[in-house]
Amino acid sequence: MTVKALLFDVFGTVVDWRESVARQARTLMEPKGITADWTGFADAWRGKYQPAMEQVRRGGRDFVRLDVLHREGLTEVLKQFRITGLPEPEVDHLNRAWHRLDPWPDAVPGLVRLKSQFILGTMSNGNVALLVNMAKAAGLPWDVILGAEPAQAYKPMAQAYLISVDWLGLTHGEVMMCSAHNSDLLAAQACGLRTAFIARPTEYGLRQDRDCKAEHTFDVVSESVLELAHQLGC
Amino acid sequence: MTVKALLFDVFGTVVDWRESVARQARTLMEPKGITADWTGFADAWRGKYQPAMEQVRRGGRDFVRLDVLHREGLTEVLKQFRITGLPEPEVDHLNRAWHRLDPWPDAVPGLVRLKSQFILGTMSNGNVALLVNMAKAAGLPWDVILGAEPAQAYKPMAQAYLISVDWLGLTHGEVMMCSAHNSDLLAAQACGLRTAFIARPTEYGLRQDRDCKAEHTFDVVSESVLELAHQLGC
Repeated sequence: MTVKALLFDVFGTVVDWRESVARQARTLMEPKGITADWTGFADAWRGKYQPAMEQVRRGGRDFVRLDVLHREGLTEVLKQFRITGLPEPEVDHLNRAWHRLDPWPDAVPGLVRLKSQFILGTMSNGNVALLVNMAKAAGLPWDVILGAEPAQAYKPMAQAYLISVDWLGLTHGEVMMCSAHNSDLLAAQACGLRTAFIARPTEYGLRQDRDCKAEHTFDVVSESVLELAHQLGC
Repeated sequence: MTVKALLFDVFGTVVDWRESVARQARTLMEPKGITADWTGFADAWRGKYQPAMEQVRRGGRDFVRLDVLHREGLTEVLKQFRITGLPEPEVDHLNRAWHRLDPWPDAVPGLVRLKSQFILGTMSNGNVALLVNMAKAAGLPWDVILGAEPAQAYKPMAQAYLISVDWLGLTHGEVMMCSAHNSDLLAAQACGLRTAFIARPTEYGLRQDRDCKAEHTFDVVSESVLELAHQLGC
């Protein structure tokens, strides 16, 4: 195996979006006397994610960056939770909660170890600004920001993976997609990439019913980024 | 001044392409008994650069990455220097000399200091693989790789600067273009970016007759990346 670059899914695989979004919503709202089930709020917001991208994937809408889709979803979720009167700048600030997600505890130490031997890139549906701001805040040591916005295509569209590999100047087999999501890895595998599953069985909370384990044959199956580093000899 | 991101020209500003290319050509050729004026060889190769990009800028040719233009230029320069019989893999290896350029001595320490306060990006006509490989080899701590290939447009086309600012999610005035080339900074300034000149009066050798100093009004004028860091309070 002559893997030269590792491309990481970010939401769920590297960062804990659910607890981070819930915490930031709570921090913003509770001083205003607004209470809610904040992990439910995060789940509802995340629930808008796939349907919104699906419109773009199906060609029903030109490519727009995830910040825009997040903002549209947030407007709907605020209505659902009957939260009104939030000033526009605060809604915008809350929308950028996705730029400030906390990494899983193993992510930064694992990436730092992997960085000495591999090119490390994002392969995320997040937009460039979101990923750069998150990396600066969380200390994620990416060598290159790739994914939906550079490719103008949302995963699991093949274009997202293929343009990234092309820009790295590598063969498909020299690039390994690392993700906590079986469907992401299947799509990357169909493009000829190597695959590494990283289990995140509580991404959606304790009652998670999907992606609890690797459901297909992948090149590496691991429980954390640190274990991935160990398995890859770092 | 509320600058949040610094975008760097790379060839000449951050790395010494002339001595690095000359050294790599010498190292490859001299054991084969091939001798030449190797800085002259580097200059001749670099001389193909602007005319080749100009074809793309004028729309006479679809965008192709710099590796391709470098390879075409190398074929011509090898002919000019009457160097024949080099095996194809060695020509390819020499072409990737541009992926292995050495930084000016102040570049890495200066960038490391700037990284704590600013988003650091490339804004180069080099392609993504070239810039990522160079960064890994030289320890250049970029947060994001931007420039010609992501924008599919060669500087000084406005699109190259504008797409980069757009992807960073910043206003034009929040981004500072840092370059040793007056024309690069003028083009960025015309797009509304802040500008920092970094003098590299020996980029083209001791008899350099252009870009020896700032020829226009820029926000910062400095002699090195370390001095730029100092002037920006890092």
